[in-house]
Amino acid sequence: MTAHRIAAVELTPVAFKDLPLLNAVGVHEPYAIRTIVEIRTDEGLTGLGETYADSAHLGRLRRAADRIVGLDVWDINGLARAVAASLSGDTALSGDTALSGDATGGSGTAGMIATASTADRVLSPFEVACLDVQGKATGLPVATLLGGAVRDRVDFSAYLFYKWAGHPGSEPDRWGAALDPDGIVAQARRMIDEYGFSAIKLKGGVFEPDEEIEAIKALRAAFPDHPLRLDPNAAWSVPTSIRVGKELDGLVEYLEDPTAGIEGMAEVAREVSMPLATNMCVVSFADLDPGIRQNAVQVVLSDHHFWGGLRRSTLLAGICATFGTGLSMHSNSHLGISLAAMTHLAAATPNLTYACDTHWPWKDPAEDVIEPGALAFADGAVAVPTAPGLGVELDRDALGTLHEQYLACGITDRDDTGYMRRFDPAYERRTPRW
Amino acid sequence: MTAHRIAAVELTPVAFKDLPLLNAVGVHEPYAIRTIVEIRTDEGLTGLGETYADSAHLGRLRRAADRIVGLDVWDINGLARAVAASLSGDTALSGDTALSGDATGGSGTAGMIATASTADRVLSPFEVACLDVQGKATGLPVATLLGGAVRDRVDFSAYLFYKWAGHPGSEPDRWGAALDPDGIVAQARRMIDEYGFSAIKLKGGVFEPDEEIEAIKALRAAFPDHPLRLDPNAAWSVPTSIRVGKELDGLVEYLEDPTAGIEGMAEVAREVSMPLATNMCVVSFADLDPGIRQNAVQVVLSDHHFWGGLRRSTLLAGICATFGTGLSMHSNSHLGISLAAMTHLAAATPNLTYACDTHWPWKDPAEDVIEPGALAFADGAVAVPTAPGLGVELDRDALGTLHEQYLACGITDRDDTGYMRRFDPAYERRTPRW
Repeated sequence: MTAHRIAAVELTPVAFKDLPLLNAVGVHEPYAIRTIVEIRTDEGLTGLGETYADSAHLGRLRRAADRIVGLDVWDINGLARAVAASLSGDTALSGDTALSGDATGGSGTAGMIATASTADRVLSPFEVACLDVQGKATGLPVATLLGGAVRDRVDFSAYLFYKWAGHPGSEPDRWGAALDPDGIVAQARRMIDEYGFSAIKLKGGVFEPDEEIEAIKALRAAFPDHPLRLDPNAAWSVPTSIRVGKELDGLVEYLEDPTAGIEGMAEVAREVSMPLATNMCVVSFADLDPGIRQNAVQVVLSDHHFWGGLRRSTLLAGICATFGTGLSMHSNSHLGISLAAMTHLAAATPNLTYACDTHWPWKDPAEDVIEPGALAFADGAVAVPTAPGLGVELDRDALGTLHEQYLACGITDRDDTGYMRRFDPAYERRTPRW
Repeated sequence: MTAHRIAAVELTPVAFKDLPLLNAVGVHEPYAIRTIVEIRTDEGLTGLGETYADSAHLGRLRRAADRIVGLDVWDINGLARAVAASLSGDTALSGDTALSGDATGGSGTAGMIATASTADRVLSPFEVACLDVQGKATGLPVATLLGGAVRDRVDFSAYLFYKWAGHPGSEPDRWGAALDPDGIVAQARRMIDEYGFSAIKLKGGVFEPDEEIEAIKALRAAFPDHPLRLDPNAAWSVPTSIRVGKELDGLVEYLEDPTAGIEGMAEVAREVSMPLATNMCVVSFADLDPGIRQNAVQVVLSDHHFWGGLRRSTLLAGICATFGTGLSMHSNSHLGISLAAMTHLAAATPNLTYACDTHWPWKDPAEDVIEPGALAFADGAVAVPTAPGLGVELDRDALGTLHEQYLACGITDRDDTGYMRRFDPAYERRTPRW
C-alpha cells in the first residue's frame, strides 16, 4: 500500500434550511452554510470533510487546499505544516496568531467563539478527509484508526432552543414557537419522543435569567431522570452567573459558559456547586494552560471543527483525562459528514462520558450531502459506522442542490445579530447582557 | 485488510553484557536484562516490542500476554483495557494503583523510577508490537502511523558515565576507567569521535558535587559548542541542588533531577537559571498535573517504556507542547528494538527538540536481537527506518543466544546497589546523599 498522495482537493460551499433558533447574539438565519471538502488521491481514493463556510474561512480553506496537494494522507504533521504555511500571509492574522491565536472572521459561530486557533480550524476538515482515506485504504473505520471504539453507540443530547414559530414572513415551521417554559417542555417532549435522547440541553441567554431558571425547573419536573444543561453563551455577568448557579444547585449536570473569559469563569466556579462547562473560553490548546491553572472549567466541550481535527481532539481528550477535566462535545448546525466524524471520535474517546451536543433534529431530514442510511438515531444514540473510513458516501446530486441553494440564498457569512436586527432594529449585541 | 487479530504472544527474557557504569544507587551489573515481545497475528504478521525483564514486570507481562490474544492490533484502547484487567489481581498493587499509580518491583531502573504507572509500563511493549504489525499491514513505517516523520534523522546525545576500568575480577573493558574530569573528557572525546554526537550528558550523583562540577567545566572547555547536561539522579538535597545549580549557571542546557520529588524540584526551579529536567518526579500521567501546576520541571524526559508506548508518548508530547514544557528522551540499557521505537517516536514528535539519551555506545556491538544493518549512527544521529513497521527484523539465533545468556547469568532483577555492596559492603543507598 504505502503512500496515498493527495492529487486534488475540492471545496463546495453549501446551504441548508435552518430554523429561527434564538441565542445570546440573535437568531439563526433561514439557511446555515457549510463547506464540503473532498480530497482525491493519485490512486483514486476519496475522503470527505465538513466545516464552516464563512467567507474568510472559505478563503483560507482555498489557500490551504492549494498547499496540501502532493502530501501523503498519513502525514498529518505535514498537513499541519502546510496549513500553517498557507496562513502565514493571511492579512487578517498577525504572525503568531496564524498558528495559535485569534483571528477575525470565519469562525462560523456568529462570533461566539472568537479565539479558537485559526490554523486548527483550517486544518480540521482536511485532516478528517485524510483519515477517511486512511480508513478506506486499510478497510478500517475511523474510530479504529483513532485507537479503537470503546462503545458501539454514541449518545447525543436533546438540544433545545427558544424559537419563533417560523421565520418572519413565513408559515410556522414544523417545530413551532417555544418562548416560555411550557413551550420548551413541549419541544423537549417532542424531540425526545422522536429521537429518544436521554439528556437535555437548553440554549439560553435569550430571556431574563429568571425565566430561563423557570424553564429548567419545568424541564426537571417533566423529565425527572434526564440530566439537564443550560448554556447562556456568556450572556451573564459574574454576579448574575453566581446567583443563577446557586439557584440551579442540584438541577443541572453542568452549567455551560455562564460568563465570558477564563478569569470570570474561575470566579464563578469558586462559588457554585455544579461543574462549569465551556466551548467559549477554552477553545484552543493555548487556552488550556490558563484554564487549567485557574480551575476555570470542569468540563471542556470538544469540537473537532475548531480543535484541529480528530487526532488533535484525541489529544484534547487525553489532556482532559490527565488533568481531571470532564469532556463533552459541542455542535454547530451541521450535515452528515460532521455527524459521522463526531460519532467516530466520540466512540474512540474513553473519557467522553457526557452525551454529545448535536443540532441534527433542527435540520430538514430531506437535506444532506451524504447518501441516506449510514447514520440513524435510536434511543438518543447513533450507531458507530463500521464501514471503512467515515462510513458515509457523498451524494453528488444532493451536493449540487445544496450548492445551488448556497449561491441562491446569498448568505456568505453567518450573522445571527444582523438577522435579528432586521426585525428588531433596537437589538444590540451585549456581553454580558444581564 | 480490516482486522489483524493477535493469535500468539511470545516473551523472551534476554541478557546482554553491560559495563561497570556508576550512578547514584550503585553500579551496573555485568549483564543488563530485557524482555523481547513478539506478537503474531492470525494472518501470520509479526510485531516486536522490548521492555524491562525484572521478575515482577516479567510476571505482569505474562499475565497480560494471556489477556491480549484475540484483540485486533489496531484496538489500542482494547489493549489498554486488557492490560489493566490483567493487573487487577496483582498482589503487589492496590486497586487504583494498578491503573495509574505506583507499584513495587519490576521498574527495570534499579528503583530510580519507582512511581511510574505499572499499567503503562506493561502496556508499552505490546503497543509497540501492535504498531509494528500495523506498519507491516499497511506498508508504512511506524513514524508515519504516528502522524508522519518531521525529521529523517534523530539526534542522540553522548551519554557519559563515571566507570571502573572493568568489572571487578575481569580485565579492563574497551572503555577503561573514568573516575575524574580528565577521564570523563577522554571518554567524551572517544565517544564523539566514534558516533559524532553533538550533545553531551554526564550521569552524576556518583562523586561529591564539586567534583562533578569540575567535570562539567572540563567538558565545557574541551567541547565549547556541545550542549551539556548533568544528571545526579536526585542525589542532592534542595540546598545542594540550588548551590550546584548556581555554579553551573550558563554551563548546562538543563539540569536533570538534581533532587527528589515535585516539591523539591519546584523549590530548586525557583532559584536556578537553567531548566530542570526529569525522568524521576514526573514519570506518569498522574504526575503531570502537580508537576505543571507547581512549575517543578521545565523539560520532561519522555520514555515510551514507562509512558505506555508510542501513542501515549505522543500524548505526553502534546501535553508538553500545550503547557510550554520542553521535551527530551530518556534511555535505559537497551537493544535494537527499543532504539528503533525511540527513533520512530522522536521522528514523529515535532517538539522533541533535544538530542535523545541512549545507552547504545555501552552495548557490545556484537550483541543484539535484531538483524544488523537497520540502524546506524552517523553524525550523532540515527536515520529513521523507512521499511514498514519498526523496520527491524528479529534475529532468532541471536535471540536464542541472549536468552541462554539470561538463563546462565542468573540475574532476574536489576540491582545496582547490591552489586556495589559486593565490592564495598559499607555502601549505602541514600537520597539525598549530599
